[in-house]
Amino acid sequence: MKAAYLEKPMEIVIRDNADVPVPGPEEALVKVEYCGVCGSDVHFYKDGHIGDVTAPPSFILGHEVAGTVMKVGNLVSGLRPGERVALEPGYPCGTCELCRSGKYNLCRSVRFFADPPTQGALQEYVVHPAGMCYPLPKSVSTEEGALVEPLAVGLHAAGQGNVTLGDRVLILGGGCIGLVTLLAAKARGASEIVVADLFEKRLEAAKRLGANGIINAGKEDVAARVKEIFGERGADVVFETAGSAATIGEAPFFVKRGGTVVLVGMAAESTINFNFSQIMVKEVTIRSVFRYRNLYPVAIAAIASGSIDVKPIVTHYFSFDDSDAAFRTVVKEAKDVIKAVIRF
Amino acid sequence: MKAAYLEKPMEIVIRDNADVPVPGPEEALVKVEYCGVCGSDVHFYKDGHIGDVTAPPSFILGHEVAGTVMKVGNLVSGLRPGERVALEPGYPCGTCELCRSGKYNLCRSVRFFADPPTQGALQEYVVHPAGMCYPLPKSVSTEEGALVEPLAVGLHAAGQGNVTLGDRVLILGGGCIGLVTLLAAKARGASEIVVADLFEKRLEAAKRLGANGIINAGKEDVAARVKEIFGERGADVVFETAGSAATIGEAPFFVKRGGTVVLVGMAAESTINFNFSQIMVKEVTIRSVFRYRNLYPVAIAAIASGSIDVKPIVTHYFSFDDSDAAFRTVVKEAKDVIKAVIRF
Amino acid sequence: MKAAYLEKPMEIVIRDNADVPVPGPEEALVKVEYCGVCGSDVHFYKDGHIGDVTAPPSFILGHEVAGTVMKVGNLVSGLRPGERVALEPGYPCGTCELCRSGKYNLCRSVRFFADPPTQGALQEYVVHPAGMCYPLPKSVSTEEGALVEPLAVGLHAAGQGNVTLGDRVLILGGGCIGLVTLLAAKARGASEIVVADLFEKRLEAAKRLGANGIINAGKEDVAARVKEIFGERGADVVFETAGSAATIGEAPFFVKRGGTVVLVGMAAESTINFNFSQIMVKEVTIRSVFRYRNLYPVAIAAIASGSIDVKPIVTHYFSFDDSDAAFRTVVKEAKDVIKAVIRF
Amino acid sequence: MKAAYLEKPMEIVIRDNADVPVPGPEEALVKVEYCGVCGSDVHFYKDGHIGDVTAPPSFILGHEVAGTVMKVGNLVSGLRPGERVALEPGYPCGTCELCRSGKYNLCRSVRFFADPPTQGALQEYVVHPAGMCYPLPKSVSTEEGALVEPLAVGLHAAGQGNVTLGDRVLILGGGCIGLVTLLAAKARGASEIVVADLFEKRLEAAKRLGANGIINAGKEDVAARVKEIFGERGADVVFETAGSAATIGEAPFFVKRGGTVVLVGMAAESTINFNFSQIMVKEVTIRSVFRYRNLYPVAIAAIASGSIDVKPIVTHYFSFDDSDAAFRTVVKEAKDVIKAVIRF
Repeated sequence: MKAAYLEKPMEIVIRDNADVPVPGPEEALVKVEYCGVCGSDVHFYKDGHIGDVTAPPSFILGHEVAGTVMKVGNLVSGLRPGERVALEPGYPCGTCELCRSGKYNLCRSVRFFADPPTQGALQEYVVHPAGMCYPLPKSVSTEEGALVEPLAVGLHAAGQGNVTLGDRVLILGGGCIGLVTLLAAKARGASEIVVADLFEKRLEAAKRLGANGIINAGKEDVAARVKEIFGERGADVVFETAGSAATIGEAPFFVKRGGTVVLVGMAAESTINFNFSQIMVKEVTIRSVFRYRNLYPVAIAAIASGSIDVKPIVTHYFSFDDSDAAFRTVVKEAKDVIKAVIRF
Repeated sequence: MKAAYLEKPMEIVIRDNADVPVPGPEEALVKVEYCGVCGSDVHFYKDGHIGDVTAPPSFILGHEVAGTVMKVGNLVSGLRPGERVALEPGYPCGTCELCRSGKYNLCRSVRFFADPPTQGALQEYVVHPAGMCYPLPKSVSTEEGALVEPLAVGLHAAGQGNVTLGDRVLILGGGCIGLVTLLAAKARGASEIVVADLFEKRLEAAKRLGANGIINAGKEDVAARVKEIFGERGADVVFETAGSAATIGEAPFFVKRGGTVVLVGMAAESTINFNFSQIMVKEVTIRSVFRYRNLYPVAIAAIASGSIDVKPIVTHYFSFDDSDAAFRTVVKEAKDVIKAVIRF
Repeated sequence: MKAAYLEKPMEIVIRDNADVPVPGPEEALVKVEYCGVCGSDVHFYKDGHIGDVTAPPSFILGHEVAGTVMKVGNLVSGLRPGERVALEPGYPCGTCELCRSGKYNLCRSVRFFADPPTQGALQEYVVHPAGMCYPLPKSVSTEEGALVEPLAVGLHAAGQGNVTLGDRVLILGGGCIGLVTLLAAKARGASEIVVADLFEKRLEAAKRLGANGIINAGKEDVAARVKEIFGERGADVVFETAGSAATIGEAPFFVKRGGTVVLVGMAAESTINFNFSQIMVKEVTIRSVFRYRNLYPVAIAAIASGSIDVKPIVTHYFSFDDSDAAFRTVVKEAKDVIKAVIRF
Repeated sequence: MKAAYLEKPMEIVIRDNADVPVPGPEEALVKVEYCGVCGSDVHFYKDGHIGDVTAPPSFILGHEVAGTVMKVGNLVSGLRPGERVALEPGYPCGTCELCRSGKYNLCRSVRFFADPPTQGALQEYVVHPAGMCYPLPKSVSTEEGALVEPLAVGLHAAGQGNVTLGDRVLILGGGCIGLVTLLAAKARGASEIVVADLFEKRLEAAKRLGANGIINAGKEDVAARVKEIFGERGADVVFETAGSAATIGEAPFFVKRGGTVVLVGMAAESTINFNFSQIMVKEVTIRSVFRYRNLYPVAIAAIASGSIDVKPIVTHYFSFDDSDAAFRTVVKEAKDVIKAVIRF
């Protein structure tokens, strides 16, 4: 079977020399049909590493995956060949303190697609624990199945911010993660959602996906506009999804007394100058987001019921054989790409 | 000015002999324009009492109210003559342990429209604490302003059940309170909502308001249908809004392990035979609903933003002069009335 | 090796004909040293069944266990032969929705000592998943290790009631579970704890373990005494641990507005006449307790730090060879036994 | 009557020229008997301002107050002349969104002793809203009544950190606020509490008040010691009470995955360099503390029940006439003073 190997920065090579893997007793063999390109994949592609984590030789990227079950191990029940599934990419140990208390996303022993040394899913077939393969109902396409992964990040962000009916929400950053956060906040009943970004294409997408207001941070004074929209009171919840030192630093000023700032974007700088006086005088809570937990069923139900339409976040399609072009495009045309999806 | 007096059971008389009241320093004088007819009002109308609470002579009913501010006291800021407002009917003390901890709906000293000895709002003008008069934005009509009260009950129910994105919800009872609970659950992102009732008109309304499924409890085996729809797992949240011993008794069987039953309907019987084994083996939480708190702004925002359309719950209109007919209709045609509204 | 077999109601026979079991790769072989006698064991002993669940032939009871690790499987890390351990008796699947969300006590596939068909721990040696064997620090005796199990029920009850510093707590029932709930509530900072029971010995034990007040339900008017102690306001949290229809029925009257009733004791009757009017008018929350989750480390830490002294709950000791006498005594002298422990 | 006026930085003058105030209808006249010296008072004393807030001419300091009720207004019930009371220094509006939702400490319209322009309590008599005067039971001395204020800060900190039974807690800073946080964490059942500070006297006090471990930040490598004590896992909750950029910056490294950092100390610098990568990778929650809410009854109950002994935090006493000396000592001998109390 074919797989896509990152041989060096900016070079993915497809080779047809791997054996189709054999599922273990509690695993499923899945034919991969869609795989999204995520920002973390792109870091590996561009630089060969993310922070301290280096891509090993012939590394396979990809963790936003959906496909069709081909075969299941002999202990698997509740999953059958022929079913279309979304694959939750992380597989936690299930027995540590964090797993047992429901925070399995923080498990130290998790294996996760394309998180070294675990290989990713840009392969024609993968084996995966059956319990992490979620069947898709008819009303959810396989392509949408691959989009469950980024959507789950948005759902977790909205959950960490405890967004609820009537909330007024500010989202800093309108890239893919900003937009899935918007979708999640809207589906939880936020009554007003404002998105700020530098790029016009993203703001247009935000509008299309239901933002009540947009702020072009390149042309407008963000602080002044936020005050105009949210008044002296400020926003109930501020999501920082841009991952820049500047936007992280602004969040304390935009949130209301007793409100919540949710950090979703990871900044390049590990330390950032931050105004804790604002946080303390307003008794703000800061929450953060590391992947997601228990949200694949929720995401699938939300897409199936129509309360979330995730498909419009996709701006670019590529074939599996063009994987290198997919990543190259995301690097070169960052402004215009919200989500690129690779079709097998 | 005119007011509507309950002179004896089944007899409301309009008399034009009251003085327009004068607002105190922190109060507003409001011209009443819409007033909904609530089940508790109807109890007083029909029987002259609710449980132990007897309607005093010449009692004025009505607590679902909206109108226009005519005058404000000299200490009032943030409210101006001419503004259209929804009136939150309860006025808590603001200083007891319950008020200070945010549960003001449970304040022992609350004054509440049409809760004896406090008179209700079926009068041409009422004075009310300015802080309990919520201005309506242009996108919310004054009629919708009067519907904020029942909607707030539904919002509180959904909040007590902590309904969130992706939840599967069962609502027992499809009267007014069942329907506003449906609206609230849907606006919070529930992915599947099923309503059970005896009356076809209510089930049709539930469908129209967005229920994914309905169960006609008069014609179908509710337990069998619930199992068919929700499977062995059961519903995440079960709302009991019918207030009958039978439906309260069924709730433990329909909820999932670790799920929540929310009691919204008040039964005629004070004690009910209840299966606590089911509750304990499944470690179910039971929550209850007494009025609402902090939800008028949320309800108004949800209507304004379009995430809730409350108007379709109204099935009947009456003029203020026909107040007696309004109540009489609700009593006589209970099956067909979901919400009657009196227009001034 | 020897094991204790329940051959028929009221007859346990020790036989020395079993092979010492061999631990699997992720298991430990544990030499059992202490095993408490729990009320559920006693039901099997006395009647041969609990509700619908019948004890299979030659059933082995016992699930409150501690001992010493003799051998570990080859995949076990973090547990060594020679370590003294408390054994959490339930072993959940780790992958279902309930396990993944941290509520593993509700897992449908859990295996639990002495929960048919799983055999219990009244054997000289047992194998158990290593992850469910909790090492005891020097400051916690092996006997205390066996008491971690009932203590965990009390901790879970106090957690479900969210007992916190300054709370005023009423505990209905002063048997073993009432007393561990008392210990847990006290360790979480409750400022006043009152215990009601029929039996003098239990009330004396409650006093000794730190109750601020006791009510002898056989001699005093419980409702009058509760009002005298807690005033019109009522208790913040009411724990029902007696499992009788009478005490369950009283709980709604003793709890404050906005307070919590926690159901810990399982009644013989599956349905009970219950006053939901009180629950609704006061907007009370009812929570229930099924075993416990994530609490073995907490219980061990609390004993080790001295914030809980669990040993005084033990009133009777028996040798393993006298297991039948142990159970017989618990049945015959129910009034006087709080906790019987079998020593190997 | 006499009052203590801050005439300029480092100079308090007692003058006997004020009239005894007259309580309004809902107020009480209280004879002040004890008043603690708080860090915020000291800032005004030393510099004439705190940040942007300048002390007005002839400003009266003091907000940690207890005394005896002399007279009550005609609408006051539940408070009688002769009762000893602790005075909660803040008086919120009771009607804004924050007050109504229970977060009255964040009310924008709060009046608070010694928060300009509101005068403080270093006067022989003060009038205060009766609802903010908490009667002290016999088992709580009037001096302890004055210590309720700083204790309430510790209780709020422990509450924001949701410290519960079995938690392992690290407190950075062992001044007054660090120590009351220690008392609160211990009373909520934390099983291990470690305090780090530069000053030996404070660490000795921490030991005396129940710390399980201490770290002398002047002599030891704090990070190394924290790792030694808490292992790779880290502390469940880290409290930052020192208010220094250095300790705030360290907190992310000491907390466990999924744990909580609580910011209690206000730094001199408004912005601080902070490692958000640690926060995000571990999905840490950061909470902050602004005064306290709903905690006077809890603090009084905890002192009365003996679960907290707050008196040992007092290291220095002064008479009212020596108020200037009291403040001067706190400024000059900061290292050695934990809490100074002024007796009338």
